[in-house]
Amino acid sequence: MTTKYSLGILGLGVMGRSLAQNFSRHGFEPIGFDLAPRLPADFKIKVTNSLEELAGALESPRILFLMVPAGAPVDVAIASLRPFLQKGDLIIDGGNSYFADTERRVRELEADGFQFIGMGVSGGESGALWGPSMMPGGSAAAWPRVQKMFEAISAKTENGEDCVGWMGNGGAGHYVKMVHNGIEYGDMQLIAEIYDLLHRGAGLSNQQIAAIFADWNIRELRSYLVEITAEILVRMDEESGLSLVDLILDEAAQKGTGKWTSQNSFDLGVAIPTINSAVESRILSSLKSERVVAAKTLGSSTKFQGDVSKLVAAAEQALYASKITSYAQGIKLLKVASQEHNWNIDVAQIVRVWRAGCIIRAALLSDITAAYQANPDLPNLLLDKAFEQAVLSRQAAWRDVIQTAVGLGIPMLATGASLAYFDAYRSAVLPANLTQAQRDYFGAHTYRRVDRDGVFHTQWEDPKA
Amino acid sequence: MTTKYSLGILGLGVMGRSLAQNFSRHGFEPIGFDLAPRLPADFKIKVTNSLEELAGALESPRILFLMVPAGAPVDVAIASLRPFLQKGDLIIDGGNSYFADTERRVRELEADGFQFIGMGVSGGESGALWGPSMMPGGSAAAWPRVQKMFEAISAKTENGEDCVGWMGNGGAGHYVKMVHNGIEYGDMQLIAEIYDLLHRGAGLSNQQIAAIFADWNIRELRSYLVEITAEILVRMDEESGLSLVDLILDEAAQKGTGKWTSQNSFDLGVAIPTINSAVESRILSSLKSERVVAAKTLGSSTKFQGDVSKLVAAAEQALYASKITSYAQGIKLLKVASQEHNWNIDVAQIVRVWRAGCIIRAALLSDITAAYQANPDLPNLLLDKAFEQAVLSRQAAWRDVIQTAVGLGIPMLATGASLAYFDAYRSAVLPANLTQAQRDYFGAHTYRRVDRDGVFHTQWEDPKA
Repeated sequence: MTTKYSLGILGLGVMGRSLAQNFSRHGFEPIGFDLAPRLPADFKIKVTNSLEELAGALESPRILFLMVPAGAPVDVAIASLRPFLQKGDLIIDGGNSYFADTERRVRELEADGFQFIGMGVSGGESGALWGPSMMPGGSAAAWPRVQKMFEAISAKTENGEDCVGWMGNGGAGHYVKMVHNGIEYGDMQLIAEIYDLLHRGAGLSNQQIAAIFADWNIRELRSYLVEITAEILVRMDEESGLSLVDLILDEAAQKGTGKWTSQNSFDLGVAIPTINSAVESRILSSLKSERVVAAKTLGSSTKFQGDVSKLVAAAEQALYASKITSYAQGIKLLKVASQEHNWNIDVAQIVRVWRAGCIIRAALLSDITAAYQANPDLPNLLLDKAFEQAVLSRQAAWRDVIQTAVGLGIPMLATGASLAYFDAYRSAVLPANLTQAQRDYFGAHTYRRVDRDGVFHTQWEDPKA
Repeated sequence: MTTKYSLGILGLGVMGRSLAQNFSRHGFEPIGFDLAPRLPADFKIKVTNSLEELAGALESPRILFLMVPAGAPVDVAIASLRPFLQKGDLIIDGGNSYFADTERRVRELEADGFQFIGMGVSGGESGALWGPSMMPGGSAAAWPRVQKMFEAISAKTENGEDCVGWMGNGGAGHYVKMVHNGIEYGDMQLIAEIYDLLHRGAGLSNQQIAAIFADWNIRELRSYLVEITAEILVRMDEESGLSLVDLILDEAAQKGTGKWTSQNSFDLGVAIPTINSAVESRILSSLKSERVVAAKTLGSSTKFQGDVSKLVAAAEQALYASKITSYAQGIKLLKVASQEHNWNIDVAQIVRVWRAGCIIRAALLSDITAAYQANPDLPNLLLDKAFEQAVLSRQAAWRDVIQTAVGLGIPMLATGASLAYFDAYRSAVLPANLTQAQRDYFGAHTYRRVDRDGVFHTQWEDPKA
């Protein structure tokens, strides 16, 4: 009798191969499946192109890990596996699937006696190989079967904690990964706007700004994205000797998870203006040829004339305050989605999983974990004492930076939206009373009052007119 | 032999009744259908609760006008009518249906030899009665059958032009109405933010601000929404003698068309940050109890110390510049949607229809009509010579107003987004090159270059590290 494999990995692209090697290194020997594998010479994992052989080679009940593109390919893979499945077999989808598809797949497979996990995996190729951040959700009964295996291959925090944890049932895992990506869009846009202000506005060179980001990376802004920004900005094009970033076309692409986050936030009625601004900014960037034409007639930004070192110091504070506000928005979205879908998610657990291995890993996340460990029912991150102080102490610098950008004509859509979110959230009274009056005026939509209960309508038009 | 009716109107709520009276007044005698009509005593239109009687009483081929709530009720009404339909009969849906539902209904009904029009109707009760703005689309062959009838009942511009016109095939009519409503959200939020700045920031009374809006309403901002804002702000609560608007709860409600506009803009990849900000601001307003708590720890806005009359003058310019930018976004969305769905829409025609009868009617629309009549292929309203000058000449005031609000702590999410849209659109170079470098660094997503064609990937990580 031959030894059986711990799990099957279907789809041996760069992510699937790297995860397979990671599992193998930790003593969970996988068998790979791919119809047309293109494998490096040093790839030692057993591979088959027969589903029958795959099914026969696995310990029972089986664990089948899909690393195929999101969408139809996942359904095709599940349908192909169906004839070989036995009760209790577990399918894991490690791609960036839309959470509603995952909800459906959990329902369909559980109805037939199988288990299904939809799992967000962050960290790219090197994360998959050396330790990704993983966000599994779906069939709760399946989690104890795979917990040790996933903990073994996961990224570790500086304290040695595993960056994997159960997110909740249904589509919770993929939803959390979607919001992770939305927050990532926000972080990247906030960094881009600060870079633009310092580069185009204050005239600092890429080398100078690289040094600034490297410096920020040893304080409160310490994070993977700030770190790689510094590395990117010093990189030279080998051929021309010019700064490589200056040679890259300024049209940002996107693959859908940011858009999904925005669209879903509107469905759930959660305001995430920083993240939405990041998606909008990528869209605006894609209009390169129009922008070049518009620049000829609509003028351009002006040069900063003030104290550059003061601006740099204020920029660090503005970036941190904006980042806090953006995380407040993303976390609120997670909490409302959890209520809506009965996922019963634990924010502290989620943020803990993000502390290493993933793109948005940052020192800030330890403080957020602490805030939600202390008070899981915190209505908004801005109401945590530590973050309240963090934002209030940076308020003046934050406002200065935005006023400066507005004056110079440098667009800071996401940074400005972050401050406006803060200012709106802390406004006991907003002008939405006027909006309600207008709606009642033209559409008889009625309004509520501050001084008594009930629903009211006013005949606004002057009957004499 | 009895006289046959020109059309049937199904659903005799306030909008259906008003349209019926409008048709009747113009010599197109309708028969109403409602299962449980609640009609005023002076309602003289013939009404039945029998679909059979309705079908038998109409001229052939029939015109059946649905005024029922959007969503399932429209499908239910169509299904109920099916047994009575003959080839060539026309169903019109005058509710706020989602355009994709309209696309489907056109397809299904045309396949069976019927005609279907999905028509946006704006203007509320008095518009329906005395002249609405109407945006029909769907079965193009049906338009000549109803054109005269709709022109007769439509709103008229000051030049006597009819505010109805064929929008395009499929769901074009309901899509145009959806974007109309999105623009309406933007207009309302921009007004609310300016009101907030003048009221909470500069300490002006509702009476003073009413006078300011009334004054603005005789110049470039002349519009229905500015006009009713002035009327609302002078209105007193009869019981308390206080300003009524101050007694209205500041939680803005919404019914879905703004949300649809935002969500669809992300699907089509069109940036509409002003409209999105308006939807987000309504969501933030709905968190009243959280805001009251947050105000206690996060501080509040400060009072404006400068020259109030200068601020008022700048606010007028900022509101107009923001409004232009918002319309530029909405029109761009219409153009991209038209390409995507092959609707072949005519922007000048759409904007002409909006000039009277509807909520966003405004002096500005005549200039926009002229701009697109002169150049139907204008890529962006901001590239029209007149609007370019209108915005550039207001630029300094626009920036002043936003800087003032940022300094005071008054949230101006939509006004700020409008300026950031302008600044991004006119930037020949945006920092999206850094975003692309980051994406390539952590995800090998590749990038394009400014100096040569092709797709590139860099091994960013230092191999020595």
